[in-house]
Amino acid sequence: MGAGTTKHTIEVCFSPHSFPLYPHESSIIVVIDVLRATSSICAALHNGVEKILPVASVLEARNFQSKGFLCAAERQAQRVEGFDLGNSPSEYKDPKLKGKIIVFTTTNGTQAIRAARKAFRIVIGSFVNLSILCEWLSHQHKNIILLCAGWKDFFNLEDTLCAGAIAYTLDKTNLFETNYDSTLASKTLYELAQKDLLGFMEKSSHFKRLEKLNLSEDVKYCLTPDLAPVVPILEGNYIVRHKGK
Amino acid sequence: MGAGTTKHTIEVCFSPHSFPLYPHESSIIVVIDVLRATSSICAALHNGVEKILPVASVLEARNFQSKGFLCAAERQAQRVEGFDLGNSPSEYKDPKLKGKIIVFTTTNGTQAIRAARKAFRIVIGSFVNLSILCEWLSHQHKNIILLCAGWKDFFNLEDTLCAGAIAYTLDKTNLFETNYDSTLASKTLYELAQKDLLGFMEKSSHFKRLEKLNLSEDVKYCLTPDLAPVVPILEGNYIVRHKGK
Repeated sequence: MGAGTTKHTIEVCFSPHSFPLYPHESSIIVVIDVLRATSSICAALHNGVEKILPVASVLEARNFQSKGFLCAAERQAQRVEGFDLGNSPSEYKDPKLKGKIIVFTTTNGTQAIRAARKAFRIVIGSFVNLSILCEWLSHQHKNIILLCAGWKDFFNLEDTLCAGAIAYTLDKTNLFETNYDSTLASKTLYELAQKDLLGFMEKSSHFKRLEKLNLSEDVKYCLTPDLAPVVPILEGNYIVRHKGK
Repeated sequence: MGAGTTKHTIEVCFSPHSFPLYPHESSIIVVIDVLRATSSICAALHNGVEKILPVASVLEARNFQSKGFLCAAERQAQRVEGFDLGNSPSEYKDPKLKGKIIVFTTTNGTQAIRAARKAFRIVIGSFVNLSILCEWLSHQHKNIILLCAGWKDFFNLEDTLCAGAIAYTLDKTNLFETNYDSTLASKTLYELAQKDLLGFMEKSSHFKRLEKLNLSEDVKYCLTPDLAPVVPILEGNYIVRHKGK
């Protein structure tokens, strides 16, 4: 990058509730819901699922189900009764899902996607697609907002750490301005946690919630970088695997 | 504390914009605007100012001014033209202010106080009153929300560090439950920064903003623990020094 060229910015937004404050109509939004929606989306597309239709409410998902769609619904970290799938990445590794379309609603992740719908572009981020996502982002020449899905509009730790990991990785390209306070805080927490993400996360609220439900394997998967190297991107109403990725 | 006793909670809210999400009507709210409103309020009351009337808008402050009140107004980190005082703690050390009433409006701090107006109780926090405030809070037997004023509704680093310092200090009493994600993140950042708060803050947005305005001395004051050991508390519409403190 030549001297005097304006760098693009990377800001972290800690909750969909705060997202309207961010000027986002010409930015790329990375929606992050590490435990577990955006990890599951990456797992599904990496496994060959054709496309995913995120919907905000269980009611909408039920409507699609009644029309014969394959539907996934999660609330309070558990599969909603009567649905084909929940929100565990392990469910999305099933070879039978190859080529399928899945309608998908979760407690936080799909709400965050909806909150960002007026953005220039929406992509899906997690630890499981960290490197390929950062590689792709570094070529877009756009401002980036890392939108943490949080937990019911509250700040959460795992999405913040993932936002920190993305900012930390992109910072090395020297293409971006990352000195916003939310970005600095996220990067600092990630740098502290990166050698033992699982250990760092043990104190967090959602980790405990999932552990009680015997979902420790899910947590391990979701915190492991690059297990599902795809760039999920919203095209129209559907999330698809970015061509070539 | 006996076994089985329910601990009171300490949660951190990173912005007045998110504050309505927090159940706060029976909680003590600590409003934190380190640079510089809540540091200035502590400095003023410590210096013997009788009471401070926080108002949200410059217009309201002008109305009080026209009625003969002593008025302070700050926007964009600078004193608003035509007002008696701005938002620098150094201004509030003037012995002439002893016994006075001051009407006060600032970019972020007084908005945060207004956002919290329905809470059980509102007190003012900063590094300059850290120890005495924590001592007082530890005796209240109430849930606590640490409300960061932020910068125009965005997350900021200095208020988060101060919230972290309060949570870290109160954690040692073993009277509180602090394992909320926002509290964990704030405490972790504070623990990392505490040995060199000024150095840690150098990258932050507001630090740079104030440095450009030659306000480095203000920043140093605001980041130094226990220089103004008072507990400012909202009583009716006024902030006063808590009796005995």
